[in-house]
Amino acid sequence: MTEEENDAARRHRAKMEKRKAVQDAEVAGKTIAQQGLLMVHTGPGKGKSTAAFGLALRALGHGWKVGVVQFGKGQWRSGEREMLEKLGPVSWHTLGEGFTWETQDRARDEAAARRAWDKACELMDDPDVRLLVLDELNISLRYDHLPLEEVLSRLGSRRADLHVVVTGRNAKPELIAAADLVTEMTLVKHHFSAGVKAQAGIEF
Amino acid sequence: MTEEENDAARRHRAKMEKRKAVQDAEVAGKTIAQQGLLMVHTGPGKGKSTAAFGLALRALGHGWKVGVVQFGKGQWRSGEREMLEKLGPVSWHTLGEGFTWETQDRARDEAAARRAWDKACELMDDPDVRLLVLDELNISLRYDHLPLEEVLSRLGSRRADLHVVVTGRNAKPELIAAADLVTEMTLVKHHFSAGVKAQAGIEF
Repeated sequence: MTEEENDAARRHRAKMEKRKAVQDAEVAGKTIAQQGLLMVHTGPGKGKSTAAFGLALRALGHGWKVGVVQFGKGQWRSGEREMLEKLGPVSWHTLGEGFTWETQDRARDEAAARRAWDKACELMDDPDVRLLVLDELNISLRYDHLPLEEVLSRLGSRRADLHVVVTGRNAKPELIAAADLVTEMTLVKHHFSAGVKAQAGIEF
Repeated sequence: MTEEENDAARRHRAKMEKRKAVQDAEVAGKTIAQQGLLMVHTGPGKGKSTAAFGLALRALGHGWKVGVVQFGKGQWRSGEREMLEKLGPVSWHTLGEGFTWETQDRARDEAAARRAWDKACELMDDPDVRLLVLDELNISLRYDHLPLEEVLSRLGSRRADLHVVVTGRNAKPELIAAADLVTEMTLVKHHFSAGVKAQAGIEF
């Protein structure tokens, strides 16, 4: 190495050492070891449900039982269901009737949301369930198919070791306020706008 | 039902019918049925890799072979690997040496990135692989551990039916420009800032 290269390597090492010190201090600052999290995946981008099913995959890897309640999109996700059920205990319930612009019937939407929420409550009472995915619950809340207060109060009183993931666009601000972790999936660019159809393996 | 309720139900139905018409027209506008997509999951939020593993789950559900190359985070994700390998053909390679602030050695980082990229190219040449996850490739590109031009050119000349997902913060603008689908995961709220430690089943 020339002296210049040595200098550059030294500067790089010093910079990285400083960064590592900051990172280590951050990790040392965490003191709460275990807590059931309320997680929200929202925003107009892709990956909200997909990331929730990724979490389910991880949970099954830890030997946990997983609950899934789908408040919408009844016809989709059957591939994920079959796959997850091969890996461990999964209690999966598709109780939505599809998007409201498909059903065009408010009373029916409300009844479907109520059935799905009842099932969610049942799964929260199952002490074996460690991760509960409430897929598209945000849509039911957005259209007021379920009373927000009731949902927040029940989620808030769940047992301490139960992780819950709520997905769907337009999460209510009150849910975001109650959550431990909120990720917004933002659409930077989408192939649909270039005329590509939904296709097997990617969209469903 | 009172007349008022009937009116409200009618208005709701009319609104939803209009929305469905818009939705149907959008779907009818898509004409390209099948195309291997270049997808990018970036941003500071959680869920970038998790959503990629969710896509892998879906791909295996369709009977596809999946390739995974990890450019970083060598010690993580072993749970997902074991789970996915139970479900179908997965060619998984963890070739990163961890984050640069852990290694503090640029030459070593570059060599590791090169090994990972060589493996990625090999998997692109495997006609059975239909989905390739390049986990944390964005980090290697950001620190110029790999020449951006070479990576873009190879991704651009991949075969037409191969889907690729690239994850990691700070995706290069040139990669975003080349991609079909880009999702930015934004951190709205994080439990780490409330002092909760990384925990099994959620972070790893």
